[in-house]
Amino acid sequence: MAAMACTSAASTALSTPRLAAVKPARSARPVHLTSAFHGQSVASVSQVAGFESSGVKYRSAGRRAVVVCKAADGQTVVIGLAADSGCGKSTFMRRLTSVFGGAASPPKGGNPDSNTLISDTTTVICLDDYHSLDRYGRKEKAVTALDPKANNFDLMYEQVKALKEGKSVEKPIYNHVTGLLDAPETIHPPKILVIEGLHPMFDERVRELLDFSIYLDISDDVKFAWKIQRDMAERGHSLESIKASIAARKPDFDAYIDPQKQYADVVIQVLPTQLIPDDNEGKVLRVRMVMKEGVPFFEPVYLFDEGSTISWIPCGRKLTCSYPGIKFFYGPDTYYGNEVSVLEMDGQFDKLDELIYVESHLSNISTKFYGEITQQMLKHADFPGSNNGTGLFQTICGLKIRSVYERILANQKNAATLQSAKA
Amino acid sequence: MAAMACTSAASTALSTPRLAAVKPARSARPVHLTSAFHGQSVASVSQVAGFESSGVKYRSAGRRAVVVCKAADGQTVVIGLAADSGCGKSTFMRRLTSVFGGAASPPKGGNPDSNTLISDTTTVICLDDYHSLDRYGRKEKAVTALDPKANNFDLMYEQVKALKEGKSVEKPIYNHVTGLLDAPETIHPPKILVIEGLHPMFDERVRELLDFSIYLDISDDVKFAWKIQRDMAERGHSLESIKASIAARKPDFDAYIDPQKQYADVVIQVLPTQLIPDDNEGKVLRVRMVMKEGVPFFEPVYLFDEGSTISWIPCGRKLTCSYPGIKFFYGPDTYYGNEVSVLEMDGQFDKLDELIYVESHLSNISTKFYGEITQQMLKHADFPGSNNGTGLFQTICGLKIRSVYERILANQKNAATLQSAKA
Repeated sequence: MAAMACTSAASTALSTPRLAAVKPARSARPVHLTSAFHGQSVASVSQVAGFESSGVKYRSAGRRAVVVCKAADGQTVVIGLAADSGCGKSTFMRRLTSVFGGAASPPKGGNPDSNTLISDTTTVICLDDYHSLDRYGRKEKAVTALDPKANNFDLMYEQVKALKEGKSVEKPIYNHVTGLLDAPETIHPPKILVIEGLHPMFDERVRELLDFSIYLDISDDVKFAWKIQRDMAERGHSLESIKASIAARKPDFDAYIDPQKQYADVVIQVLPTQLIPDDNEGKVLRVRMVMKEGVPFFEPVYLFDEGSTISWIPCGRKLTCSYPGIKFFYGPDTYYGNEVSVLEMDGQFDKLDELIYVESHLSNISTKFYGEITQQMLKHADFPGSNNGTGLFQTICGLKIRSVYERILANQKNAATLQSAKA
Repeated sequence: MAAMACTSAASTALSTPRLAAVKPARSARPVHLTSAFHGQSVASVSQVAGFESSGVKYRSAGRRAVVVCKAADGQTVVIGLAADSGCGKSTFMRRLTSVFGGAASPPKGGNPDSNTLISDTTTVICLDDYHSLDRYGRKEKAVTALDPKANNFDLMYEQVKALKEGKSVEKPIYNHVTGLLDAPETIHPPKILVIEGLHPMFDERVRELLDFSIYLDISDDVKFAWKIQRDMAERGHSLESIKASIAARKPDFDAYIDPQKQYADVVIQVLPTQLIPDDNEGKVLRVRMVMKEGVPFFEPVYLFDEGSTISWIPCGRKLTCSYPGIKFFYGPDTYYGNEVSVLEMDGQFDKLDELIYVESHLSNISTKFYGEITQQMLKHADFPGSNNGTGLFQTICGLKIRSVYERILANQKNAATLQSAKA
């Protein structure tokens, strides 16, 4: 019975007992990949990346027998989260993990600079780990981290595919402190694998593996305000250097990152408020959740009347809010040629009353009990964005991911039961 | 027991048996009131009106013994409907009467030019019947029918008060055909008395007698379009004469009719559409129902979330509409210093689907079964405004009046039961 739900790729290894923990041979010395590229043309970079990929394939093939067969608990559900750096991905990930209960932490006893976060249900891997060029290599080649040439999509695809098929992988670690590639760490197939970073939807093969995908789309105005907050106030950078750094990234961002929006099941757009005329503080935000229609196991959230167009100012006779208040919008739209539903929140919550009032008027939010969103938001009231649409929609995305996961699982079980009944 | 609910004013006549039909002594000749005014100053017109009033008082006093004591079925509920002529009052009245079932017709065997409409439950009297100056008298004095000086408010007050107290009255008839005042007709106290015309809320005493009041507020643009439709297309008037007639009425309208808006429990505003840019056809309308808060036995209709501000375009994924579509607005506001809720409909219904869809999303509409509004609107699909907000809101007003009536009745019964239990 347990074998019924095993993936076909793993079926050749069914007789092999499951190895609970495959300890990789760790290299103590960081791998400096750029040394291989000296004097080569740009075109050959991908060949080298392919070589690296093959190397991993080889290692992977060497351990084919040590396959993890996921049985009754179903296959790994893969979630993609695309966003630029400094856009609140880590907060998003913490909110998401929290929905499943339990805290997320880096792999125990491993590289302290690992970017991976593991909890009972989820494993979040950072796609920076698939950089094929480290900081020095990128400098030498004059390519940004946004450039596909600095990333190994073959390896990304193989490893995500392996994890989805229930096999552990040896994933490289990009060390954000040193800017080098550290020795790989073992990733075991979790219930939910989140791949977050710059390019989760760039490569068609990787994209095909995603069960659900989200794109965090921060408008230039807000990005600028946030960068100033972080890089100027906290890191002492100058306004000019921040402007220059944003400008330098923009061409590659527009060429390689931004187009992924079209593939996302949900795009969270963060924009300046429209409630305060000519606001340039960037503190009050207008956040839009663009939800694709017709995605398996996912029903877009709606306000009052599914499929119609609604604007709603909840603050009024029953709910009082301080200036500038809160305004919602909901309606159907098209986005990159796809039919979508848009839910928008402008403004921010001042009090718990406002949050629960809003939650109680939203439908299809995939909560398990009344007030679950409010409870989650309060639990992490100290996280950035807890009083506005970023926190609200991140939390809703967390609930939606849980729902997608549970429905895929239920679907697999039903299919297994059906197959077993036929047999 | 039955005597418990009698009005105190009628209590002196309790021992008198109820006279089912009080036949008035009819004058065969129309009363030409202006003859009394010749050569008098304008100031004395009101005195003459007072005299007329006293005259009626006298007649009324002469029949004091013939009092109708309304017992278990409660006192007459009085509704005021203010509107200019040619603004759809008669359609409104037909919609209202229809809510109670049965057709309305003029008093049987009476003056064929009577303005009164009687049904099982309702009696609608036209306040033009309280003109103190007939067409000739107004011409002579150079006053319009809108001018209070051309109307007998003392008599209006006394008769509405008498009817409310369960007493029949001898009401004059203003003959719209001849422009003269005909001999009076007897009006018996109905369950619901509707007084409709130019001044139901002008006189403070009459206003105080109203249990519920409505003001039909047609914007100048729409009024003009309607007048053209009726007076030019149907009656052969010239565009210039229509413009002149509207302009001539405007000062008195603004002085005496328009200010009554502030007293109305519901104001129905009829405006040009905002869905078609620069529309001047006047065929598509934007209709607003301004509902006063805190009116006894009346709860304003709302859309989705009571007390918040909402705009709703029902046409979308579930409901498709043809151009220019339908748009609703709902929200709290202030109107002449009063707290109100506003429900607005712009556009028109093409199909039954649209009507029932909209009805199913409105709350506090006082229907007795699902789809009652749609049923009423379909029943009178040939009435003007059946495809837009005028018909919808008139129908809703009808349901609201029924609800006010039933709740006043229930309240009286409760009070009577309580008093009987105490005794």
